[in-house]
Amino acid sequence: MGVHQYFKSLSDLEKLIRCPGKFKYQDHNVAAHSFKVTKIAQYLATVEEQNGQEIDWKLVYEKALNHDYPEIFTGDIKTPVKYASYEIKKLFAQVEEEMIEKFITEEFPEQYQEIYRHRLQEGKDDSIEGQILSVADKIDLLYESFGEIQKRNPEPLFFEIYESSLETIMQFDHLSSVQDFIEHILPDMLQEKFIPRSELREITMSILEKREIKRRL
Amino acid sequence: MGVHQYFKSLSDLEKLIRCPGKFKYQDHNVAAHSFKVTKIAQYLATVEEQNGQEIDWKLVYEKALNHDYPEIFTGDIKTPVKYASYEIKKLFAQVEEEMIEKFITEEFPEQYQEIYRHRLQEGKDDSIEGQILSVADKIDLLYESFGEIQKRNPEPLFFEIYESSLETIMQFDHLSSVQDFIEHILPDMLQEKFIPRSELREITMSILEKREIKRRL
Amino acid sequence: MGVHQYFKSLSDLEKLIRCPGKFKYQDHNVAAHSFKVTKIAQYLATVEEQNGQEIDWKLVYEKALNHDYPEIFTGDIKTPVKYASYEIKKLFAQVEEEMIEKFITEEFPEQYQEIYRHRLQEGKDDSIEGQILSVADKIDLLYESFGEIQKRNPEPLFFEIYESSLETIMQFDHLSSVQDFIEHILPDMLQEKFIPRSELREITMSILEKREIKRRL
Amino acid sequence: MGVHQYFKSLSDLEKLIRCPGKFKYQDHNVAAHSFKVTKIAQYLATVEEQNGQEIDWKLVYEKALNHDYPEIFTGDIKTPVKYASYEIKKLFAQVEEEMIEKFITEEFPEQYQEIYRHRLQEGKDDSIEGQILSVADKIDLLYESFGEIQKRNPEPLFFEIYESSLETIMQFDHLSSVQDFIEHILPDMLQEKFIPRSELREITMSILEKREIKRRL
Amino acid sequence: MGVHQYFKSLSDLEKLIRCPGKFKYQDHNVAAHSFKVTKIAQYLATVEEQNGQEIDWKLVYEKALNHDYPEIFTGDIKTPVKYASYEIKKLFAQVEEEMIEKFITEEFPEQYQEIYRHRLQEGKDDSIEGQILSVADKIDLLYESFGEIQKRNPEPLFFEIYESSLETIMQFDHLSSVQDFIEHILPDMLQEKFIPRSELREITMSILEKREIKRRL
Amino acid sequence: MGVHQYFKSLSDLEKLIRCPGKFKYQDHNVAAHSFKVTKIAQYLATVEEQNGQEIDWKLVYEKALNHDYPEIFTGDIKTPVKYASYEIKKLFAQVEEEMIEKFITEEFPEQYQEIYRHRLQEGKDDSIEGQILSVADKIDLLYESFGEIQKRNPEPLFFEIYESSLETIMQFDHLSSVQDFIEHILPDMLQEKFIPRSELREITMSILEKREIKRRL
Repeated sequence: MGVHQYFKSLSDLEKLIRCPGKFKYQDHNVAAHSFKVTKIAQYLATVEEQNGQEIDWKLVYEKALNHDYPEIFTGDIKTPVKYASYEIKKLFAQVEEEMIEKFITEEFPEQYQEIYRHRLQEGKDDSIEGQILSVADKIDLLYESFGEIQKRNPEPLFFEIYESSLETIMQFDHLSSVQDFIEHILPDMLQEKFIPRSELREITMSILEKREIKRRL
Repeated sequence: MGVHQYFKSLSDLEKLIRCPGKFKYQDHNVAAHSFKVTKIAQYLATVEEQNGQEIDWKLVYEKALNHDYPEIFTGDIKTPVKYASYEIKKLFAQVEEEMIEKFITEEFPEQYQEIYRHRLQEGKDDSIEGQILSVADKIDLLYESFGEIQKRNPEPLFFEIYESSLETIMQFDHLSSVQDFIEHILPDMLQEKFIPRSELREITMSILEKREIKRRL
Repeated sequence: MGVHQYFKSLSDLEKLIRCPGKFKYQDHNVAAHSFKVTKIAQYLATVEEQNGQEIDWKLVYEKALNHDYPEIFTGDIKTPVKYASYEIKKLFAQVEEEMIEKFITEEFPEQYQEIYRHRLQEGKDDSIEGQILSVADKIDLLYESFGEIQKRNPEPLFFEIYESSLETIMQFDHLSSVQDFIEHILPDMLQEKFIPRSELREITMSILEKREIKRRL
Repeated sequence: MGVHQYFKSLSDLEKLIRCPGKFKYQDHNVAAHSFKVTKIAQYLATVEEQNGQEIDWKLVYEKALNHDYPEIFTGDIKTPVKYASYEIKKLFAQVEEEMIEKFITEEFPEQYQEIYRHRLQEGKDDSIEGQILSVADKIDLLYESFGEIQKRNPEPLFFEIYESSLETIMQFDHLSSVQDFIEHILPDMLQEKFIPRSELREITMSILEKREIKRRL
Repeated sequence: MGVHQYFKSLSDLEKLIRCPGKFKYQDHNVAAHSFKVTKIAQYLATVEEQNGQEIDWKLVYEKALNHDYPEIFTGDIKTPVKYASYEIKKLFAQVEEEMIEKFITEEFPEQYQEIYRHRLQEGKDDSIEGQILSVADKIDLLYESFGEIQKRNPEPLFFEIYESSLETIMQFDHLSSVQDFIEHILPDMLQEKFIPRSELREITMSILEKREIKRRL
Repeated sequence: MGVHQYFKSLSDLEKLIRCPGKFKYQDHNVAAHSFKVTKIAQYLATVEEQNGQEIDWKLVYEKALNHDYPEIFTGDIKTPVKYASYEIKKLFAQVEEEMIEKFITEEFPEQYQEIYRHRLQEGKDDSIEGQILSVADKIDLLYESFGEIQKRNPEPLFFEIYESSLETIMQFDHLSSVQDFIEHILPDMLQEKFIPRSELREITMSILEKREIKRRL
């Protein structure tokens, strides 16, 4: 029924919860994740540009915005299934492609079909914009898993996600933006302090005493 | 790390929400769904037995309890993907089997491995117990979709689920228990009345008047 | 503490729920809203471009992505308060600006400050990109309120929001993209059908009968 | 451990959800319910006072604020159980009393025990303040069930609650405040209109046309 | 539409979540918060009375119950915005006042307007009842932030809230009730112990051993 | 209205949240709990059978599936109330029985009433199947409370539940399945490691360094 179906489907992305089947302190949906990835990609591309790299901004945004949209058609298939064999990966990519093609042909006016066909294809290629998407996607995943570790989620999975995200990011350390992330952003993340209970008692006592002293003066 | 991992995994089923990516008034998790399917299967098997069918009760319960456990390994793959082609279906079944095998070998003591290998295999076969599972699974899905339709979920998907669930149930209408369901339970479900607003006004007025009359006496 | 604070703040947008203080069937957070607005703006700009309008794509995306970011500093101030008087509106805009300035100066490296200063300023100006943002923001609000009306939220507020959003969109009906929306998308939205209970009984009966007929053949 | 335990227990009332075991569109907790009952009692007492009744305001507030606090000790016992027999009702009341007594003796400083013993006893007596509590408690229950009916909760239970709440309120129709409620508030509640979908189409068309007309002028 | 609108608005307070835009382990709504503040104020006033202070109980309850009601009109404006300048604070106060005035005139019967005008005005004045409200409001905020710190919320904000709440409470340490809080309640709060994991192992072992010993006897 | 009411009631068990009135990181409903208890009972019975015990499998499953169903009629009565006196316990059991009897007579076809009367009676008797139910119920409670302790729930209640659950399990340590649990499963539960923040830093550094080294080669 046309573009209305496309607009309506955006709201379905708000009901797709990432990492289902695991207890999390904070849930994230695919729409919000896509937003964060796009904002992170914006920063990374800014750093690249400042370092002399030519950036196709339109492409950066298109890739980041749409990178998880196909999950609407396929659902959340666990990574080990997806990558169980070369065959299954190829077949799966094929099915996904057919579903996107069907959706575009059915819902989009003819004059926009080619444009959306392009927008909804796999974005993580070797171009600088494709690399930025790969890194931005993993940085948000790193933040999501860090959020769970920091809240002391006992599930080892989040530690594994943190580890493998960082490893993937590091594979792009030839990029200035990744070097910037490693040198300036990651250290701040690791320095996030947790206010220990002992400090709670100290601050309480100090407030009480301060008052006491003032009163005596 | 042994059976502890298996016990712990049961709680992951509580975090697997059925039908992700769609707005629902009431969410259902896989653990609760499995409970309801087992209770429904219990009733269906009771009807079958009363109608002279021999029932292997142990098998009824094993099939119903475990029928969605493998989703822990594979995640929620949308049906259209799963059934896109014969090839992909076969490959997915194969991957699932390997994952279950790996889990059993790693976590269960040797003397119980064969038992769990049997328990965790696909339960919907042609035996009377397998057929009961097929029907019970769809009856719960019928109730879940009916619940959304009754609460006036505007998403056509739930109507489609209701329709296809009922169609599947009807394919088993050679079973006494399905005939019992069609004749005695489904009509009551359809007769669930909704209290219309007009009735709200009426009942309000009648309470007010009743009181008025009493006071005058 | 630098860009880490900025990245972390994106997650706060996931905890800002739109339209607080009112019962809603489906909640939306500011991060997901920003994603949807950006995707809608992408479509509108595509239509404009196809109709001969020159589009600065980088600007379209920057405006849409960042348009609600300042809510992190100010919180959700109800519109009637914000627009109670010219004075309060001016003062409020001033405070917002100071807070953004403070954030940029404290958190961003010097070489990126000017870029972010530009990105985080009010985006709804008279440029074609500014107009597209105004329309996209209201289309998402229209969909959010339509979703509540369709689910039969009895709160008149959502009808008022629907009405005023549509009125604002209509103020931009000199745009080809708005004409496209009115002629092709809005009619489909209004034709969304609700499956009435009578149809539920009919489809149930038809499935039962179909089976009956087949069996008799 | 003293009054700290009492203050902390207030937060447990926020985790006690009313009417458990039933699907509701909007959940209410005991803390929020107690707040609403107190505000409603405030209004009812105001009406009584204006009609010449002498009101012990301190008592009105004490009764309303504390009327559900004992649920912390007993949990949510379904009404049919509670009132199954005279014997069980008497025994439950006795157990509740003992638990409150134990809590007061253990947690409150001696000089305040008598005061809290008085505050935490059953408030719904024959005094004007006790009657106001009885009515206010049922008015909030009426609003809670009306909210579900208005959102079209198909569960007949909420209609039954609406009905029995109104019947209880009517037993106090010798009170001016109940007459005020029946004559001025209840009619407005019943007149809450629901915006029908036909109206949605009309308003949409009217906005579109208005614009059209303006443009032509 | 009269007092019905006022009663209905109480339920909107249940949908106003305190401290939006931040991850919290436990959410609190304005209705429940108002309840807790009123109960805390009740205790504080009890202590004051026992220490010879004359208390206007009606006023204590009115102030506590209504202190956050105006948030229905204004929404949650972040404190730094509200207090950015003397001018903006004055203007906001003015707007709030006008909105309350409009609500009272439109919804309340004439004979109750003056009473509610009085009830809904700013309650934190210099009277003993106003001071009790200021303290009770901050004690509940202290408990809310303590709850997050105790659950190990890594967000520094909650530590800042804890600190500034306690500082405000201390400004009222000329009150007997504040002295009582500092001397008897706060120490108990700080002594809340957390069961460390080592203790978990110990208790487990001790239960196992106890049993072992009994069996051997 | 027949078995439909029974099927529908299963969904009410999904809305009964265990341990109401207390903050929990992860909620559990009665339907999901019943599922987990049945799965745990299945394992325990398997161990018993392997150790030469004769098992009535049908009974094991019936007892586990139905053990909390009566909560639909009675609600969640806090244990201290339930066991306050012998009298109250007896009366309460009597009321529960009457309610179940009424439900069965009203909803079930005559030919199944006797079967369900048997299924819904108290399952924790001295038979091997009854003992397995007692143990399985407590093992799930142990896991639920362990989950809260591991997530660092500061509420001492969960430690008390952990302790008393383990003590009850130990009372059945004449069972091979309990010995298996103590020797093989409990130790793994206690060895669940929590990834400390120091390890987070280490793993981060090691990933960074590994990359560095590779690059230099």
